[in-house]
Amino acid sequence: MTDKITALDLAAAELSDATRTYFAKCEEKLGLVPNVLRAYAFDDKKLRAFTDMYNDLMLGDSGLSKLEREMIAVAVSSINHCYYCLTAHGAAVRELSGDPSLGEMMVMNFRAADLSSKQVAMLEFAVKLTEEPAKIVEADRAALRMAGFTDRDIWDIASTAAFFNMSNRVAAAIDMRPNPEYHAMAR
Amino acid sequence: MTDKITALDLAAAELSDATRTYFAKCEEKLGLVPNVLRAYAFDDKKLRAFTDMYNDLMLGDSGLSKLEREMIAVAVSSINHCYYCLTAHGAAVRELSGDPSLGEMMVMNFRAADLSSKQVAMLEFAVKLTEEPAKIVEADRAALRMAGFTDRDIWDIASTAAFFNMSNRVAAAIDMRPNPEYHAMAR
Amino acid sequence: MTDKITALDLAAAELSDATRTYFAKCEEKLGLVPNVLRAYAFDDKKLRAFTDMYNDLMLGDSGLSKLEREMIAVAVSSINHCYYCLTAHGAAVRELSGDPSLGEMMVMNFRAADLSSKQVAMLEFAVKLTEEPAKIVEADRAALRMAGFTDRDIWDIASTAAFFNMSNRVAAAIDMRPNPEYHAMAR
Amino acid sequence: MTDKITALDLAAAELSDATRTYFAKCEEKLGLVPNVLRAYAFDDKKLRAFTDMYNDLMLGDSGLSKLEREMIAVAVSSINHCYYCLTAHGAAVRELSGDPSLGEMMVMNFRAADLSSKQVAMLEFAVKLTEEPAKIVEADRAALRMAGFTDRDIWDIASTAAFFNMSNRVAAAIDMRPNPEYHAMAR
Amino acid sequence: MTDKITALDLAAAELSDATRTYFAKCEEKLGLVPNVLRAYAFDDKKLRAFTDMYNDLMLGDSGLSKLEREMIAVAVSSINHCYYCLTAHGAAVRELSGDPSLGEMMVMNFRAADLSSKQVAMLEFAVKLTEEPAKIVEADRAALRMAGFTDRDIWDIASTAAFFNMSNRVAAAIDMRPNPEYHAMAR
Amino acid sequence: MTDKITALDLAAAELSDATRTYFAKCEEKLGLVPNVLRAYAFDDKKLRAFTDMYNDLMLGDSGLSKLEREMIAVAVSSINHCYYCLTAHGAAVRELSGDPSLGEMMVMNFRAADLSSKQVAMLEFAVKLTEEPAKIVEADRAALRMAGFTDRDIWDIASTAAFFNMSNRVAAAIDMRPNPEYHAMAR
Repeated sequence: MTDKITALDLAAAELSDATRTYFAKCEEKLGLVPNVLRAYAFDDKKLRAFTDMYNDLMLGDSGLSKLEREMIAVAVSSINHCYYCLTAHGAAVRELSGDPSLGEMMVMNFRAADLSSKQVAMLEFAVKLTEEPAKIVEADRAALRMAGFTDRDIWDIASTAAFFNMSNRVAAAIDMRPNPEYHAMAR
Repeated sequence: MTDKITALDLAAAELSDATRTYFAKCEEKLGLVPNVLRAYAFDDKKLRAFTDMYNDLMLGDSGLSKLEREMIAVAVSSINHCYYCLTAHGAAVRELSGDPSLGEMMVMNFRAADLSSKQVAMLEFAVKLTEEPAKIVEADRAALRMAGFTDRDIWDIASTAAFFNMSNRVAAAIDMRPNPEYHAMAR
Repeated sequence: MTDKITALDLAAAELSDATRTYFAKCEEKLGLVPNVLRAYAFDDKKLRAFTDMYNDLMLGDSGLSKLEREMIAVAVSSINHCYYCLTAHGAAVRELSGDPSLGEMMVMNFRAADLSSKQVAMLEFAVKLTEEPAKIVEADRAALRMAGFTDRDIWDIASTAAFFNMSNRVAAAIDMRPNPEYHAMAR
Repeated sequence: MTDKITALDLAAAELSDATRTYFAKCEEKLGLVPNVLRAYAFDDKKLRAFTDMYNDLMLGDSGLSKLEREMIAVAVSSINHCYYCLTAHGAAVRELSGDPSLGEMMVMNFRAADLSSKQVAMLEFAVKLTEEPAKIVEADRAALRMAGFTDRDIWDIASTAAFFNMSNRVAAAIDMRPNPEYHAMAR
Repeated sequence: MTDKITALDLAAAELSDATRTYFAKCEEKLGLVPNVLRAYAFDDKKLRAFTDMYNDLMLGDSGLSKLEREMIAVAVSSINHCYYCLTAHGAAVRELSGDPSLGEMMVMNFRAADLSSKQVAMLEFAVKLTEEPAKIVEADRAALRMAGFTDRDIWDIASTAAFFNMSNRVAAAIDMRPNPEYHAMAR
Repeated sequence: MTDKITALDLAAAELSDATRTYFAKCEEKLGLVPNVLRAYAFDDKKLRAFTDMYNDLMLGDSGLSKLEREMIAVAVSSINHCYYCLTAHGAAVRELSGDPSLGEMMVMNFRAADLSSKQVAMLEFAVKLTEEPAKIVEADRAALRMAGFTDRDIWDIASTAAFFNMSNRVAAAIDMRPNPEYHAMAR
């Protein structure tokens, strides 16, 4: 293993001012610049499109808590066995929940966790959407409504699960390496 | 079937000026506003994040032709059996190629098409990334390079295949309905 | 792609009188001789066995309408991604239903269609029989009876789904090419 | 378990003269009337279409020996876990080969058998055609030709594997029961 | 096929006295030394660990009858297509049940058998545990309790199904050959 | 979540002297009694059979290092998403390797790790044996020999992978809970 962040050699353009500012903000708030951002940084437009979508989804207004969104991220990434996302978002679950074992359960098998039936419904939907999207039918949405989710919540569950089905595949395709700092965080 | 664009009832906010302008431009250029845009229009930020990523990916600079990107879109959507994306992007393949049967082959089984070995390599990578992302290894990237793709091309193949793995799942989760006009286009 | 109907070089015997007559009838009634018939025509006995079974199944007496039998054909072929059958029978669904989008939904994902619960039960049975025949149990037949099907209807649903599981595989094995005319029919 | 041959109640019409004659011939040659024929006997046309196809395929001229065709039948039925076909055709493999353990290996896992590389190629093609028909490409046919098969042989391998993918599903759908006599045959 | 019991060449140590005594007892009680024991005999410790676990599980005290434990063994081995275990334990089911066709049904598809709903629940649990262990949840255990099983019975069902998931894989990995005598037993 | 070690209520017999001694030794050497041992402790014979097999396999003589055996354990458990085994043996990989990120890669996706081609061959064999045991053929063993493994090594790779296919399923079936201490070990 080298220090490369991905398996691709992409012409590493000089970072734009906007990107440098953004990375500085990451360092300040997170203590690191997530490697996924460095991976996208060869192209300013792609980086911004990615971060705009990501930040809205994971940090924006939602009926789902930030922890719940991270739980979806990790449960989806567990099915897809995505090393990058499991490492980075597993750390996020540990941190946001203050419960290291919860992060491990999301990484390994969310069914091991002692969750509310509402959260189980949320994750079961995310899993079905990941494993067999073609088989989602109205009954699946009805189950979420029965569990107490609004239609807007369903959008957010769906969008988050879908986003990580994208992100897992970008990471797999280019062998994206997570920042080593994640491993020790919030253990 | 009703005239609903999705199965969700999302507070249909008044469209912002920016969105109205954007939709007018769609009408002008495409003759319609793709329903996926109307589906995201309940939230300006989400709409813009989606279109920024989509437009860069499908219309921006790339070593892949627009047709090739649409072929990836459809081959991925075929595996996921996404009614929305197969309808909209199947039409795009028919249109861009001027070959209606090529669109059908992408929808039904890309292996039926008489493609160059380079394009076959591209689609086989997209398919593996869709079906078993966890199993992508260096040999898979090497096969793309052998077929003549640059590392930047690999990024674009990966990003496009990954994007439709997201988009297929958003569409499946909310039962997104394609504009009926697509069916007859470029037949 | 050449003008070959299949990937195999089979000694193309002179067509028998019976076959010539049959093909003339096809031309007259359908405007074409389906390529599947030309593929089998190297052997009169095989051709007749195939057409006898096919005609009885798809055109003979049944509690299922011809459209319903075609819907089963296409839903099964969608799972198996059979280019030949999706093309030929997709056209049949469009034609018999007078609803082009219905044909597309069967090809892409029958779950997108707004069907009666009876038809959904019929297609779900056909899909399970296709995907995991070993797991069919009495409860699956009971569900069809509950939906209003007779035992004879169950035979017909089963036989039709099973037939296309055969036909899809013959077509896949020999790369059978559909008549190009199908693409534009009933759009 | 009752003495019923299938799970369906089909109006058991009086057998036609042709069918009675055919069944008498079965009794004479095989010592029994295979239950699959009794299952189809509610409708003369369906019975004849089935037997015409079956007899041509399994008993007609072919570059494949009758034993090889039965081996394909059983290897395919093993994947589909078809109780009827494994019982009836497992007996046929034992009988035609004079090697009871060969029949068992076909039923359980053909990879356990010590076959020629030509026969392994034949069965691997049949298995791929059964498990993932959509993925058959020219290389799969080329492998059969390399192993020594003609294009006509490929047709026969494909048709036989495809036929049992049909037959397995008819049997599963209606819970067809094999004649008990098969179990003890050629042990 | 040679007379080798496995595909591996393991230094065949002189059998220890304990092993010779054990094998003599097998000969006496079963009329043969099961090849699985000869396969493990290259190492006394491994042989004893295997037989201790096996004998406790299959012959020790349990709320499950010996026949039921053998049924689980064969139903699991059917999914894994294990030639060794299907041969040896298929014979055991025939023998213990006095019903040769029951052994065949377990080998081919346990769903063909006319079992009590309690036994069906037992086998469905074993099958799910084999096919998708990650998806076992409390509801699966609850179904077993509803069917009349105690918690200790659940342990035994789970342990037996799990054991054959191990044993099937050892046999597959080393191509373990069953004793030919099994084929004719209890037919 | 309660403090229960499994989901089953098994008559917790007074621990035998032998078991108490064994557990004391565990405490001394490991700092804890692994919950899997407490789970088996309701029955002395079962506990001993399990520990005899486990200790021989994971701690006995072998051409594989202890770390390599633990890597197999975790790679197999990752496929089966076994919370118990991933937690306990993930900790073992971290500890034995002194490389916390190696443990994480085994848990998440062993393909992310920078292993020797010999170790990759070992894990690919373990994965195939886990995912599709029926498809192991001589070529798979040949690949291990080519990579430098002896036949005895192949036995050990197979036995270890097979053992965890058992253990994962026992843990899943009874919802076995890992000792909380594992989470923080060797981070």
